[in-house]
Amino acid sequence: MQEERLPLGVAARLSRYLQILTQTKKSGKRTISSQTLSEYSSVNPTQIRRDLSAFGKFGKRGVGYNVDYLIGRIKEILHTSGQHNLALMGSGNLGVAIATSRIFADHGFDIAALFDTDTVKIGHPVGRLVVQPLSEVAETVRQKNIIVGVLAVPPAAAQAAANLLINSGVRIIFNYSEALVDAPPGVAIHSMSPAGELLYALYFYLT
Amino acid sequence: MQEERLPLGVAARLSRYLQILTQTKKSGKRTISSQTLSEYSSVNPTQIRRDLSAFGKFGKRGVGYNVDYLIGRIKEILHTSGQHNLALMGSGNLGVAIATSRIFADHGFDIAALFDTDTVKIGHPVGRLVVQPLSEVAETVRQKNIIVGVLAVPPAAAQAAANLLINSGVRIIFNYSEALVDAPPGVAIHSMSPAGELLYALYFYLT
Repeated sequence: MQEERLPLGVAARLSRYLQILTQTKKSGKRTISSQTLSEYSSVNPTQIRRDLSAFGKFGKRGVGYNVDYLIGRIKEILHTSGQHNLALMGSGNLGVAIATSRIFADHGFDIAALFDTDTVKIGHPVGRLVVQPLSEVAETVRQKNIIVGVLAVPPAAAQAAANLLINSGVRIIFNYSEALVDAPPGVAIHSMSPAGELLYALYFYLT
Repeated sequence: MQEERLPLGVAARLSRYLQILTQTKKSGKRTISSQTLSEYSSVNPTQIRRDLSAFGKFGKRGVGYNVDYLIGRIKEILHTSGQHNLALMGSGNLGVAIATSRIFADHGFDIAALFDTDTVKIGHPVGRLVVQPLSEVAETVRQKNIIVGVLAVPPAAAQAAANLLINSGVRIIFNYSEALVDAPPGVAIHSMSPAGELLYALYFYLT
């Protein structure tokens, strides 16, 4: 049976709730109110209650939502209960910061490979990974069933790194570089835009 | 005369356009079509044309928008033509990556100070900054008129670092740590949520 896809907005909000719930769980809290979830997600509490009530009866009035239960249910709804492998391009300061943080691991994304062009870095360990040369991207992506690529490379190297991943079968690219990256249809590019978000925050501060 | 504030959505989209236009300019292009702007921003072309036409006649049919002119106009509309100072908390891998990239500088945000608790790092240069101790936050924020703080610290240190900035007068916090951070009313917290965006991208890949 083909399930119906969630609307874009609902999927985006559920993903955000899931991330916040996972952080809440790590901080040791077992319940969360829609008000608190609202403060962390910038989604209004009415919208949150509506989103969650569409999938069954979750919350208890005055007690809030059970964090564990809600994490399990949203993972089911988003089909993201599994473990997914990710390739990281670039072992500079940003690449090392990503490779050694739990920012992806806590959400079921395992950094399965780390690549760089720098022959001084290739072969050296970063956390539990060893830096590999670009010549091994295609084979590693295939062997480890990698579907997500993360670009932590200088702007001038971003498009080539993206092309290499895409040609190897990667279908989701997470772009941390400052360059604009093009991709063929069927490949999703997500560019981090901290400066854009900062300009937006500043506007409301200044006006 | 008090100008009317832009609606939230418009301000967010204009900020995003501005960021993409700045990157387009750096890549040497002088014009951009609403179609191209749409591909990079994930905003549909009709919405883009509507957003921009509300502020005057920008585009030329078949030629696209003049990048320089559009950057200037959006900066005027967003009141972000000036230079704004930013304090960076944390000089680990992520902090150094931020301090040495142009990701904020290209948009008028100058990283004016870098702080860390690590006595080994304090006093040492990172790019054109020197790592300062936390005891200097309040004085530096006041002297340099810093209104934005960026958290590149471990999760356990995030709330204390945020509190220190807020108590010193910072009103916009950009949270790169994985921790949830609370703030009093009047202070905007923007948390980067790469894992949340990845979960969202994955949903559409898997379904």
